[in-house]
Amino acid sequence: MKDRTLLMIPGPIEFEPAVLAALGAPTTSHVAPDFIEAFGQALERMRQVFLSAEGQPFVLAGSGTLAMDLAGANLIEAGDKALVVNTGYFSDRFATLLERYGAEVTHVHAPIGGRPALDDVEQALKKDHFKLMTVTHVDTSTAVITDVQALAKLARQYDTLSVVDGVCTIGGEELRQNEWGGDVALTASQKAISVPPGLALLVAGPRAMETFHQRKTPVANYYADWHNWLPIMQAYEARKPSYFGTPAVNLIWALNVSLGQILAEGMGARFKRHQALGRACQAGIAALGLGQVPLKSEYAAHTLTAPRYPQGVSGAELLPRINQAGATLAGGLHPQIKAEYFRIGHMGPAGIGDVLATLGAIETGLAGCGYKFDAGVGVAAAMAAYHAAT
Amino acid sequence: MKDRTLLMIPGPIEFEPAVLAALGAPTTSHVAPDFIEAFGQALERMRQVFLSAEGQPFVLAGSGTLAMDLAGANLIEAGDKALVVNTGYFSDRFATLLERYGAEVTHVHAPIGGRPALDDVEQALKKDHFKLMTVTHVDTSTAVITDVQALAKLARQYDTLSVVDGVCTIGGEELRQNEWGGDVALTASQKAISVPPGLALLVAGPRAMETFHQRKTPVANYYADWHNWLPIMQAYEARKPSYFGTPAVNLIWALNVSLGQILAEGMGARFKRHQALGRACQAGIAALGLGQVPLKSEYAAHTLTAPRYPQGVSGAELLPRINQAGATLAGGLHPQIKAEYFRIGHMGPAGIGDVLATLGAIETGLAGCGYKFDAGVGVAAAMAAYHAAT
Repeated sequence: MKDRTLLMIPGPIEFEPAVLAALGAPTTSHVAPDFIEAFGQALERMRQVFLSAEGQPFVLAGSGTLAMDLAGANLIEAGDKALVVNTGYFSDRFATLLERYGAEVTHVHAPIGGRPALDDVEQALKKDHFKLMTVTHVDTSTAVITDVQALAKLARQYDTLSVVDGVCTIGGEELRQNEWGGDVALTASQKAISVPPGLALLVAGPRAMETFHQRKTPVANYYADWHNWLPIMQAYEARKPSYFGTPAVNLIWALNVSLGQILAEGMGARFKRHQALGRACQAGIAALGLGQVPLKSEYAAHTLTAPRYPQGVSGAELLPRINQAGATLAGGLHPQIKAEYFRIGHMGPAGIGDVLATLGAIETGLAGCGYKFDAGVGVAAAMAAYHAAT
Repeated sequence: MKDRTLLMIPGPIEFEPAVLAALGAPTTSHVAPDFIEAFGQALERMRQVFLSAEGQPFVLAGSGTLAMDLAGANLIEAGDKALVVNTGYFSDRFATLLERYGAEVTHVHAPIGGRPALDDVEQALKKDHFKLMTVTHVDTSTAVITDVQALAKLARQYDTLSVVDGVCTIGGEELRQNEWGGDVALTASQKAISVPPGLALLVAGPRAMETFHQRKTPVANYYADWHNWLPIMQAYEARKPSYFGTPAVNLIWALNVSLGQILAEGMGARFKRHQALGRACQAGIAALGLGQVPLKSEYAAHTLTAPRYPQGVSGAELLPRINQAGATLAGGLHPQIKAEYFRIGHMGPAGIGDVLATLGAIETGLAGCGYKFDAGVGVAAAMAAYHAAT
């Protein structure tokens, strides 16, 4: 029997052996020629994975929250107005963070599991001028995906920078920063980028960089200040040694390996695979008779599924049983419904086999809790949906 | 022939195979029971390695500069006065950082390679009341070690918090936070703590935490805000799951392994080993007829040696030759003397064998540059100093 369960939470996820091998390899100097080449290549690949031909990539040691902080601290000055398209926990966090840097934040809210109507967002943009608008591509607390393409277009129409929190999406969900006119996209390494946690990743487009360069006040956050890091990113990309803070050498080697794998699969193929996995997992959950947090199937992310516990079954009972049966899943996160649902991540290198194994463990766990269903109905529905989608 | 050179820069360094193996192992959930245990244990071990029985440890994804930012952002409010005991590049950085958070900074300067006299520091403390004083234990740009014990005592005498930048020292140089009355000590993982880069590490004593809790204004930096992280550190140490930002799971597994190795050696033995290595390396350099940046031998760090290039030899010529001969060293960092010296790190698991191999490579490099000396005089002097010190 395997000595570890499948890690199917919304990050960290199952990583590829070559990525882990790069992470655990003997460390090089941060100015060794081979590391400079790897970091430079990783920065170029960031642009390709973010589909942001003109963007400026930033790679820093930190969590996804630092990536959010990079956007907030560098683009906001005290008194700036910001609009938050709010779909849950991480949208709230972005608002708190922007306020920390002096922003006056307006929210466009949606009910839990829903997403703000485009019309409501447009009404807000009409009423006031906002320096930037944040959009959580997939809020990890609800598994709701927003329509980033339409929102970025709206933002541009109203001369507002769009900042996409793509922590649960970039490298998995379709996101075309350049083509869609997005200004900033950010994520953390341990999600669909498929590298163990510890790197904050961000690509800022030309309008965002121009806004940054036109600041009138210093960036309030020293570590996150692009003035410190921009010359470093430019130097590594130009294959020149440089130093501000020691880069997370091993993680960057691993990042370069993973970005290479992502690009070898191809962004289009990768988006399609995640769409098929998402639909498969969600079809399996639906066939088992469980509800889901997203209020409509078109709101459901492809990187993440958020099933509701069936009547009479608690997470405290179900999740350990699923774990025992071979898959580690995550509990709820949204404070208002935390005890009512759980979360399954299916991103990065995950395949249909991982989704089937996970649904199998869920079936075993549910059966152990005394929940009634036809054995195999979940995995069968997943397989059918997968075939239909591929 | 080995396919890689010895990495003898002031971080990242040569890491232990068990640490790299932990780093490259399949990633666990950040709330898996075994990871909670490892993180909790790592926090407890931080206290033992920092010799800070009552301190509050913080472990965040980030570089050493983030560790400095944690101290500055959480302890400084606009208008606070701070004193910087300035011994070089990283002391300057601390001043810049404190000013970013609104501090009025006073410096006590020393010439390059020197350190401010205790009397001068005391005069400054008498003239004005400072909320905190920063001390760079070893400034990586000069290899000068400060007398932290005496400085921390002075700070306490004048009711000033002492913050020790121990980036190049903690886990190598003697630093006894509790016994010496220090308030904050911080470092990065890739130095004497002996874990690949990517973790900012800090331990704050009770007076520092009290100062933090008595803030009247919000912490200006969102990511670094202890309000976000304190409950997380407390939860992991109490072996309870918790979440603010995803911890750098693999790096924390590696950290726990390394802290375990450090404590198995014993702090006293570890300090002594570094003292012997420092004296050995510096004796070897002196025997080769090279000067060093520290103006007196008592100012010289034990984790790091900063030799001056001999007349007629440039770094551009020498360092690649040393590299070719088997050891990767670092160039100068202090802007005013950058081209005049180079740096050798000897910290973490390094032994006398590594120092001898490095000095051997330096001898080969110097000979290749046409510099005249008696072959073997450097390694012989190192060995003699090592024997005298152990």
